[in-house]
Amino acid sequence: MEVVQVPCMNGGIGETSYANNSLLQRKVISMTKFIAEEAIANLYCNTLPRSIAIADLGCSSGPNTLFVVSELIKEVDKLRQKLGHDSPEYQVFLNDLPGNDFNAIFKSLPSFQKEMSSQLGPGAGPCLFSGTPGSFYGRLFPSNCLHFVHSSYSLHWLSQVPEGVDNNKGNIYMASTSPPCVFKAYYEQFQRDFSIFLKCRAEELVAGGRMVLTLLGRRSEDPSSKECCYIYELMALALNDMVSEGLIEEDKVDSFNIPKYTPSPSELKFEVLKGGDFSIDRLEVSEVNWNIYDGEFNTSNGFSNDGYGVAKYVRAVLEPLLVTHFGDAIIDEVFHRYGKIIDDRISKEKTQFINLTISVTKKG
Amino acid sequence: MEVVQVPCMNGGIGETSYANNSLLQRKVISMTKFIAEEAIANLYCNTLPRSIAIADLGCSSGPNTLFVVSELIKEVDKLRQKLGHDSPEYQVFLNDLPGNDFNAIFKSLPSFQKEMSSQLGPGAGPCLFSGTPGSFYGRLFPSNCLHFVHSSYSLHWLSQVPEGVDNNKGNIYMASTSPPCVFKAYYEQFQRDFSIFLKCRAEELVAGGRMVLTLLGRRSEDPSSKECCYIYELMALALNDMVSEGLIEEDKVDSFNIPKYTPSPSELKFEVLKGGDFSIDRLEVSEVNWNIYDGEFNTSNGFSNDGYGVAKYVRAVLEPLLVTHFGDAIIDEVFHRYGKIIDDRISKEKTQFINLTISVTKKG
Repeated sequence: MEVVQVPCMNGGIGETSYANNSLLQRKVISMTKFIAEEAIANLYCNTLPRSIAIADLGCSSGPNTLFVVSELIKEVDKLRQKLGHDSPEYQVFLNDLPGNDFNAIFKSLPSFQKEMSSQLGPGAGPCLFSGTPGSFYGRLFPSNCLHFVHSSYSLHWLSQVPEGVDNNKGNIYMASTSPPCVFKAYYEQFQRDFSIFLKCRAEELVAGGRMVLTLLGRRSEDPSSKECCYIYELMALALNDMVSEGLIEEDKVDSFNIPKYTPSPSELKFEVLKGGDFSIDRLEVSEVNWNIYDGEFNTSNGFSNDGYGVAKYVRAVLEPLLVTHFGDAIIDEVFHRYGKIIDDRISKEKTQFINLTISVTKKG
Repeated sequence: MEVVQVPCMNGGIGETSYANNSLLQRKVISMTKFIAEEAIANLYCNTLPRSIAIADLGCSSGPNTLFVVSELIKEVDKLRQKLGHDSPEYQVFLNDLPGNDFNAIFKSLPSFQKEMSSQLGPGAGPCLFSGTPGSFYGRLFPSNCLHFVHSSYSLHWLSQVPEGVDNNKGNIYMASTSPPCVFKAYYEQFQRDFSIFLKCRAEELVAGGRMVLTLLGRRSEDPSSKECCYIYELMALALNDMVSEGLIEEDKVDSFNIPKYTPSPSELKFEVLKGGDFSIDRLEVSEVNWNIYDGEFNTSNGFSNDGYGVAKYVRAVLEPLLVTHFGDAIIDEVFHRYGKIIDDRISKEKTQFINLTISVTKKG
């Protein structure tokens, strides 16, 4: 399969960069990391490996990149001290598409590794990092070499825009007004991609290896459910406004579709069971407000506590995709209008993203 | 040990970049690759591994980065076809300091991998690449995970300028006028660094694993031999000229020393045998003219076939080190004078670099 290289998030460290607009993703990692910690603790206690190979798939480049991995290593270190075992060696593979800013990650590693060894107990094994560029919808590692795979907020991205969504007029994702064939095309693309993902990881993980995946999804069985589609329906509103004012050609919006799928718990479960390589340990659903600052983060860091703030972090993720399709002249205006629309809605209704977290074990 | 991060070569793809001035290194790789091919062929035939992990240490970023590794994989693929075996999987680790331009390498990988699979026979296993940032004077990989280690033109770099070379007045490397303690300090630093290198690689390689290292050296037992020191004595000439014209402070030159060591075959052999983890299969000495274009490369690519051309490729490697010490204002002038001096000498005498290539096997 030829995997289309979906453009990466906004690079660098500027105002609209992903590195500076990834608090939502951080919050989700924090909320769900107990599941990953539980999984790696079980893995460690059951197998006591001398070396643990951990892969973080879709690691991005920014403050979140090394966060989970460091928490996982600390968890194992705590356990090995408690159990009185020699420390394992840690081999960490950070994966993302080849366009990801690996240089920035690598430059931060020496100080990170220093900090890690001061945090770990005496006698902790070396933490050895590599970057692995490539699509996770294909093989990334040799057979039977990984013990633990983690991925957060990456697997809702499809390998490509599904074929057969040409008639998704006025929409940019599945929407209540999309024709049935659009839902079918999106779902089938998700099934193809996710089953390839599972097949590759099943080859790469050792028997008994664990995998914890968090992705955007929905509770409802309805793929046009507001809980997963609303955020893009509002963006379509902004784009269609600009069409009606002659600022964007109608055709351009009609032919733009986001290569993403937000599955339901049962769709996710179905794919894992169908593949047959993994048993399911946990499948959790959680939610996070669009407005992540809702009393929990202070706003002194210069982020706006409103719809414009939401638009900003969506921009950090979607801008490269939009620029490729629409050019960059319209971007500021699109996100200004989008921010205004979101600002209006979040003052009137409860708006949340739904996260699915699945924890699985590779069968023996 | 706290390894000093020696600045990397000139980055990017500009006129003075390493990527555009690495034909010397390419030539040396081409000249010595039969030794690496022989070693990996022996490794493959003796152990028939299902997965081969190859590390290239000091891979840099440019046209040479993937060259050796692709030749090694082709060699194994040829053999497995001849022997009628299933292909192994190939896991390649590209290592250099964290400041190396890994992004450029990673962006070139998708087309390289495509090209590779068209060149390999049907049924060839996947070629899986990772980048591993860090100093090779420390652990980079888990225990017992590598099958083959290659390094070309990197191991003559020391981890730091030796301590105790403050009185190397007027010189920037070991020179005929250096006091004895300077030679001692350089040699001891080499011994410390090289023994740590061997110890780390012995931990990382599987029993029977192979390692082929090429580095700048000398034939003579005299560490101030012209064959290894002359190139820097001429640079010291250029710098001291500028001192006498008041363009550089004398102290600045006196306190600059290049963190490099060019061992003799017996010094190299002594370290390997002292460490005790490796047996020596081959130790070859080769030479390459300073003026690499000597009738072998055509000059239609815009490189100058003279001393200025030599100064240019030395600049691609040394500029970051010089800029850190002297600032960047003097660089153009230093290399202009250096080119002129080299141009004069190569017209009058035979000037060559000496390469040592050692092929070793990790003991069982």
